[in-house]
Amino acid sequence: MDSLQILENSPGITDTPGFEAAGIACDIRGNGDGRRDLALIYSKDVCTVAGVFTKNDLKAAPVQLCQRRLEESNGFHGVIINSGNANAATGPQGLKDAYAMATRASQNLGCPPKTLLVCSTGRIGRHLPMTSIQKGIAELCQNKGTLTTCGEAAAEAILTSDTRPKTVSFRFKGPSGEPLTLAGMAKGAGMIQPDMATMLAFFATDIRIESSLLQKLLNDAVDRTFNCISIDGDMSTNDTVLLFANGHSGVAIEDEHSALSKTFSQALEKSAALLAEKIVGDGERTTKVVELCVKGAPSKEKAEKVARAIANSLLVKTSWYGDDPNWGRIVHAAGYAGIGLREERLDLFYEETPVIQGGEPLFQNEPQWRSIVSRKRFKITLNLNLGKDTYRLLATDLSEGYVAFNKAEL
Amino acid sequence: MDSLQILENSPGITDTPGFEAAGIACDIRGNGDGRRDLALIYSKDVCTVAGVFTKNDLKAAPVQLCQRRLEESNGFHGVIINSGNANAATGPQGLKDAYAMATRASQNLGCPPKTLLVCSTGRIGRHLPMTSIQKGIAELCQNKGTLTTCGEAAAEAILTSDTRPKTVSFRFKGPSGEPLTLAGMAKGAGMIQPDMATMLAFFATDIRIESSLLQKLLNDAVDRTFNCISIDGDMSTNDTVLLFANGHSGVAIEDEHSALSKTFSQALEKSAALLAEKIVGDGERTTKVVELCVKGAPSKEKAEKVARAIANSLLVKTSWYGDDPNWGRIVHAAGYAGIGLREERLDLFYEETPVIQGGEPLFQNEPQWRSIVSRKRFKITLNLNLGKDTYRLLATDLSEGYVAFNKAEL
Repeated sequence: MDSLQILENSPGITDTPGFEAAGIACDIRGNGDGRRDLALIYSKDVCTVAGVFTKNDLKAAPVQLCQRRLEESNGFHGVIINSGNANAATGPQGLKDAYAMATRASQNLGCPPKTLLVCSTGRIGRHLPMTSIQKGIAELCQNKGTLTTCGEAAAEAILTSDTRPKTVSFRFKGPSGEPLTLAGMAKGAGMIQPDMATMLAFFATDIRIESSLLQKLLNDAVDRTFNCISIDGDMSTNDTVLLFANGHSGVAIEDEHSALSKTFSQALEKSAALLAEKIVGDGERTTKVVELCVKGAPSKEKAEKVARAIANSLLVKTSWYGDDPNWGRIVHAAGYAGIGLREERLDLFYEETPVIQGGEPLFQNEPQWRSIVSRKRFKITLNLNLGKDTYRLLATDLSEGYVAFNKAEL
Repeated sequence: MDSLQILENSPGITDTPGFEAAGIACDIRGNGDGRRDLALIYSKDVCTVAGVFTKNDLKAAPVQLCQRRLEESNGFHGVIINSGNANAATGPQGLKDAYAMATRASQNLGCPPKTLLVCSTGRIGRHLPMTSIQKGIAELCQNKGTLTTCGEAAAEAILTSDTRPKTVSFRFKGPSGEPLTLAGMAKGAGMIQPDMATMLAFFATDIRIESSLLQKLLNDAVDRTFNCISIDGDMSTNDTVLLFANGHSGVAIEDEHSALSKTFSQALEKSAALLAEKIVGDGERTTKVVELCVKGAPSKEKAEKVARAIANSLLVKTSWYGDDPNWGRIVHAAGYAGIGLREERLDLFYEETPVIQGGEPLFQNEPQWRSIVSRKRFKITLNLNLGKDTYRLLATDLSEGYVAFNKAEL
């Protein structure tokens, strides 16, 4: 991992040679607040692209567009992203609008419409304000560039209820010492759960790599990072992760087992893990990040089931919020996962401090429990002692602020 | 149904001839607040008993006691119930304590220990304060009686975070016009979900009925009532429903298909439905009850899956709380149930007002949507148009008050 160099305070996408970006305001929310809400990522060089999408039965129009275009061919110049409106549950008109976004951008960028992808995030069930968007796209394409400010503007324009932009950049070296880059940006906030929920993440690299291998590497990285976070248990209609590879460096990954492929995979997993952590840390009005590790399960699936039951329990989440070492709620939630727990085998730890051993609480440790769960970030390990499998999940607490925020119309 | 007469403002259990009750305070919470926390239901006549219990892997000690005793034989005099401590996740000591409660009560009541059952509800993971409880049981057994105040005291003593006692009584007639009774009491509040969660419910009838038929009738009633409510998606370690039949009236149900059996089943289902509705209406700091009906599903299981995804979605619950007709969150939650929804087939209604038809929103109805979701109780119907099956669920909203309440240690 020494070969990976992280770039601090990076603008994200525009760190990768050959990628341009932009972010502008076109009042998609219709409230005249001047927020940036339209972003572009663009590469003059044709890219191979890998994508991972929501598993929600109801896929937003832009998700349908991306999936169709990725099935048809694989050579893309970029993606247009809007926030403030999810273009989901919008029927045939919604699909028409998504295609129109790509078409309008392609006219401004001088590339075929089918080489552009589209993502949207925001409120479900409202048609896009296409007049504003069409006008915005023209401005967006004019503004695109490789400046740091362009990357920052794009990272800002994709946000919804996030409180801050989320970017990441890694530099590493090719076989002959060539400098290579993988950079990314993401948004999260509400509805973050299992199979990624209103989460958008974009990665750009200047490596050349064939699309099916790129897809495999992305699947692996997403599975170990974005799919292991949970804020409120909801799963969005719009979740999308896109990874663009423009080959600008001239360096190629030909073989999955090459040293470069391994380094790139590490960079990708690290980048995705960092963005996932940033997303969880910026969950809607959450105050804590809890790393939850379920061990000793009879299978990975069962470990995951237990971890998700705990992470999604409102009673567990509210006790975390209240600094209450209420381990009873944790084992209770684990129990209703229904995987066949045995109370007398359970070992539970807050960080390294035993809470229960063989089902018996160690009350003498209570002062330490209390001090640990008062932290902003702590780890909980539950060993089921029923097998060898493990699942790790990043979870959050639940605050009154979350409720107050989400009861208001967004 | 004309033959069923509901008794208004009933004390519950003590309405049934031959049943005595009591409720006293013995400071189980250890805070000296004088709250009633120990209850007894007792019948001098030996009862047949049917029971339904939590499906949580981790069953509280009293649940284990009840299940064992019901397997061993079927002839019971009553049940001791404490609130303030769940006696769950308490290991071998917890089981010993549960048995000791029954034994102590049996000494006071002059019946064999194995003819008594035990229920507990409250905080998980703490041993019972047995000195207080032993003392309390003696007082409890002295105080038992058939007075209205005894029934009311018992209904009060089983409460935890409930704001009010929940009782029900029905009178109906035997084949020769004999007056018969089915009465009950329950507690709910937090953790109310699928397979009943920290919910205790007790029913008493003076009919004579054999235990296996009694169990069948109880299973049917519970499945159609208590199992169709959802407050926070949690499922308790302690959920228990017990139905006592003491035969005091001398009237027997011999045949499942008799008129009396049908009347009794109706009384049981109506009683359970009324208590279930009272539990949902008294969910922890909830402000609304939403009747959610998923229709047109390919199977009942899939209808239930969609209904629970909607009812447990924090984003849906908070929008209800905020009087926001955010139907997008409803279809989004339905979509992640993953049963194969088709957006273009969805019909959604607030009460009788169409919200979406064939996937298309009818925005002209928005003022009516808003007025409906502002009510304290309203109905939502989602027709998937994929089959013929239906599932109905009573759900609640989620308030800041729920979070504030549950972050505090109980």
